[in-house]
Amino acid sequence: MPTLLAVDAGGTSTRAVLVATDGTCLGYGTAGGGNPISSGTERAASAVVGAIQTATTVARLTPQDVGSGILAMAGSGVSPETDWVTSALADAGFTGSVELRSDLLATFFSGTYEPEGYALVGGTGAAGIRVRGGIVDRAADGLGWLLGDVGSGFWIGHRVVRDAVAALDGRSGPTALTGLLVDALGLESDAGIDADGRPGVLRLVTDAVYRLRPVELSRFAPLAFQATGDEAARAILAEAAEALARLFGAVADPDLTGPLVLGGSILAQKSVVAEAVATAATASGLVSETRQVPDGVIGAAVLTLQTAGVDGDAAVFDRIRTSLAGLR
Amino acid sequence: MPTLLAVDAGGTSTRAVLVATDGTCLGYGTAGGGNPISSGTERAASAVVGAIQTATTVARLTPQDVGSGILAMAGSGVSPETDWVTSALADAGFTGSVELRSDLLATFFSGTYEPEGYALVGGTGAAGIRVRGGIVDRAADGLGWLLGDVGSGFWIGHRVVRDAVAALDGRSGPTALTGLLVDALGLESDAGIDADGRPGVLRLVTDAVYRLRPVELSRFAPLAFQATGDEAARAILAEAAEALARLFGAVADPDLTGPLVLGGSILAQKSVVAEAVATAATASGLVSETRQVPDGVIGAAVLTLQTAGVDGDAAVFDRIRTSLAGLR
Repeated sequence: MPTLLAVDAGGTSTRAVLVATDGTCLGYGTAGGGNPISSGTERAASAVVGAIQTATTVARLTPQDVGSGILAMAGSGVSPETDWVTSALADAGFTGSVELRSDLLATFFSGTYEPEGYALVGGTGAAGIRVRGGIVDRAADGLGWLLGDVGSGFWIGHRVVRDAVAALDGRSGPTALTGLLVDALGLESDAGIDADGRPGVLRLVTDAVYRLRPVELSRFAPLAFQATGDEAARAILAEAAEALARLFGAVADPDLTGPLVLGGSILAQKSVVAEAVATAATASGLVSETRQVPDGVIGAAVLTLQTAGVDGDAAVFDRIRTSLAGLR
Repeated sequence: MPTLLAVDAGGTSTRAVLVATDGTCLGYGTAGGGNPISSGTERAASAVVGAIQTATTVARLTPQDVGSGILAMAGSGVSPETDWVTSALADAGFTGSVELRSDLLATFFSGTYEPEGYALVGGTGAAGIRVRGGIVDRAADGLGWLLGDVGSGFWIGHRVVRDAVAALDGRSGPTALTGLLVDALGLESDAGIDADGRPGVLRLVTDAVYRLRPVELSRFAPLAFQATGDEAARAILAEAAEALARLFGAVADPDLTGPLVLGGSILAQKSVVAEAVATAATASGLVSETRQVPDGVIGAAVLTLQTAGVDGDAAVFDRIRTSLAGLR
């Protein structure tokens, strides 16, 4: 059986791994954004192929040695076509087929090989799933910045900017977020007073933020974590944690107990938000263990093995993790 | 002295009036959106010229009889150029010059001829001003849907949609807003269950709303007022009223007492929001009287008289109001 292919294609970065059927990872490569919805099909295909080529070189293999595989990405259910990537792979000499899988499922299987449990991802967006029998049984949120993604990096960054602007506008009391935002935008806080009686820096901030695409406001989420002791920042993070706890509530089933896997920049590391969400979810009695994972590439490897008929057990899962750690 | 021209150019409709120097309105006309920022310069210029032509016909005048005037519009301070409209006016035979004025100031002078006081406008956006000596002394908000406009029609409509969607997604309890939104979008609520365990109507609603431009979400604001007795709707309107009361607080000056003029679809009519805002503002002791106005056309007439050197007194103001009422 040829080496199998697994790709975790995110909006800002892509990870590819070549894995043997016993779970041994042979090569690993990364590239930029590989999601065709956010990056466009051409750039996304280049990123995916680039990451795979790097992994192939690292494994000292040729494209002909690489078999079929899976590509985990957001929106896989909405846009199930793979033409955009298979033709680019064929041009590069890779002849295997590629199936799409849910990025949320890849996150889940990056934390566990068990077929039942929960995953919450808080990155630029926010979404949760309940996994039963190895597939997505129930999803919640992931509805985008305008309609949902409550508690996500966008949501936090948007609140940071709105609160900082409201303080500059005299509609709320001062907050440390204002100075942090002005600095983050590289602006001068002393820009005089405008004709309408408002600080000139308010206009500078407004102009700078409207030049961004809405989702780019997620870049200001870290300011809420930096502004320790600030009441506005504390309230934003508390509301984000409450929203993500409600997200868990939407996918929780009283009859399903299992691990809770946390992923995405907001939940994958130790923070007041991640701790509050883990505590709230654990209080439901449905969470056997909480695990934080930096991305979905281990789960992508698990999914490609499952697709090839190899069910992951503890030994295979440990082999993926250990061998991949040696390549990263 | 020739007849003077006054235009209140809004994002969705434009009003033009021809006024004699004693305040008598001679002609009145309306057209579609006349703001070049939201409608584009070509369509905005057509609307403005069309409204003026109608007013001229109603007044039984010719373009040569019409003198200079003012054009009140949002963003007048940011984009002070008038070329986009003066060339179109010249093509139609109107030879007077046009100066831009703040739409908020036009709203203020639609409710009073006094040179000091306050105006709050809650339409698609939300903004407030303090007026001193007949000009804008301090403005607040009006910062657009992404950064501000707190308590506006967009803000309320956005919250309506998010709350309705959260209920469909199982992230919050049921709300009457869901059924109202599904009906408003012309969708069927019984669309089965999707593969990810969610109601199909959630996907239909999400797809329909993402086809709108963000500001168009203001069309769902009325649903919050319709859903009487619904807890989610009540909370949205209470937060909108609090936000608009904070907006008044941002422009309030303990040394300035005067009338408060309320305009825009959210504040111009009797509603729980308008009443709560009026009550909160009056409690400050800075509001001599509260008046609701449907648009800024009376104030545009006041501003064009001021620009021509005619200071409005009670008699002139009453003459504008009475004669305009006869034309509308």
